[in-house]
Amino acid sequence: MEIITSSKNEKIKNITALLSSKKERDKQGLFVIEGLRIFQDTLKTAPGFIKDIYVSESFIKEHPEESILIENTGSIRIITVKDSVFNSISQTVTPQGILCTVKKPEHTLEEILNGESVIQERTQKKTDGEKNKDFKILVLENIQDPGNLGTMLRTAEAAGVSGIIMSRDCADIYNPKVIRSTMGSVFRMPFVYVHDFTDALRSIKEHGITVYAAYLHGGESVSGVQFDKKCAIMIGNEGNGLTDGAVAEADRRVFIPMAGQIESLNAAVAAAILMYHGIS
Amino acid sequence: MEIITSSKNEKIKNITALLSSKKERDKQGLFVIEGLRIFQDTLKTAPGFIKDIYVSESFIKEHPEESILIENTGSIRIITVKDSVFNSISQTVTPQGILCTVKKPEHTLEEILNGESVIQERTQKKTDGEKNKDFKILVLENIQDPGNLGTMLRTAEAAGVSGIIMSRDCADIYNPKVIRSTMGSVFRMPFVYVHDFTDALRSIKEHGITVYAAYLHGGESVSGVQFDKKCAIMIGNEGNGLTDGAVAEADRRVFIPMAGQIESLNAAVAAAILMYHGIS
Repeated sequence: MEIITSSKNEKIKNITALLSSKKERDKQGLFVIEGLRIFQDTLKTAPGFIKDIYVSESFIKEHPEESILIENTGSIRIITVKDSVFNSISQTVTPQGILCTVKKPEHTLEEILNGESVIQERTQKKTDGEKNKDFKILVLENIQDPGNLGTMLRTAEAAGVSGIIMSRDCADIYNPKVIRSTMGSVFRMPFVYVHDFTDALRSIKEHGITVYAAYLHGGESVSGVQFDKKCAIMIGNEGNGLTDGAVAEADRRVFIPMAGQIESLNAAVAAAILMYHGIS
Repeated sequence: MEIITSSKNEKIKNITALLSSKKERDKQGLFVIEGLRIFQDTLKTAPGFIKDIYVSESFIKEHPEESILIENTGSIRIITVKDSVFNSISQTVTPQGILCTVKKPEHTLEEILNGESVIQERTQKKTDGEKNKDFKILVLENIQDPGNLGTMLRTAEAAGVSGIIMSRDCADIYNPKVIRSTMGSVFRMPFVYVHDFTDALRSIKEHGITVYAAYLHGGESVSGVQFDKKCAIMIGNEGNGLTDGAVAEADRRVFIPMAGQIESLNAAVAAAILMYHGIS
């Protein structure tokens, strides 16, 4: 078994590059997940996406059962790392001693609009009842905060959303901060970054999906609105909201009623209230 | 006009202490707000709470109107600080050049349960209609993330919540991270830390307020529940939820329906969905 003892090792340097650079993640089509829980989730949901597993020497001692589980994953390469080296690349305060490089799940706009997912496990689990359920997607324009984006992914899965469509200026989902706050949803929630946001909004509408824009400067209070069975909820940038161009493409503009002197809600909170509108 | 040119100045050292230490904030009964927007908000909502205003030399040059406004605040002391000194204590990447020490708004459990607020401006603005509205409070047990707590305060104000009751192991609202994410709600939303959480829950119920616990392990789906006109929404710790003791005191246990493989929502998101339940 290979053991890495130096943080100057090329593999270790590459993990640091994948953690810190979107460019590197894009080039290699890989990103990094860290922690036992998300590793177990990924092994269950999307084992084919795992490339290499890195474990610290302590991890192997402390988790003999996990180590056997990992050995049974077959084609995946397992690399043991000296504790001090592992801790030097870890993004957490108390490293658990396991991280993986993982292939990015790639989806297309068409797949999302047709309710398909490239992750087979997820699709296979769908029952006939689920297939005929309401179809809801989340559309994000220029969301900048990684924590907000991760929370939105997690909430979207919980609210039964089928997919997420993002303008290309949104934060990178594969940023380690987003990955941490998604709690594994990154492998279960199909998403796509679109090159032309206006074109994407038009495609959504052509698929018979009603686009509701979260809008602070007018429109209808969401409390009086019942979303169509096929709907898209569109949320804009944390500071500025949606652009005029995006609002112009929406079928309807809705606002969340606000008391007091509050001018806007946190973007992840607004998205949650709208995604749960009608089901909570 | 006094000008501070050294970061070793006692006043500057005290601001650093107030920013970094809960103990110091508790001892002095003061905390720090930073930025033009929250300063203007505070001047409008709670001018009597401002103690000292610190402005950088650049701020005075760039905001002549603000400087006149500040001069007209009368009894408040205005202290000018050299830019480099100001930047050394600032908690932001691009300092705006204004911060204040502010007295902590103190509320009691009784005030909150009776819908009273010590901030006069807020009470006076209440219309008769508002006074007779539904009465809703938020009850928090051991919320640890400052960002979550700030977001909850802001969402609570927007959702028309009358006050927040917290177990004393919740994060400190006067932590600079919370203050930043509240967007000024800290002066408009009455809150109290209670010494004995169980006692507080009993007081809430004695005031005829129904306590709904957000509970992940059973109870009723919130989608089928209509909250009583006088209600308390109780949310627990981010990782562990509510303690058994807190759940035992609740009148009803409710959960938010979750699809997919999500085991729990972000605490601020769960609080938002429950606070907006029935009004969105």
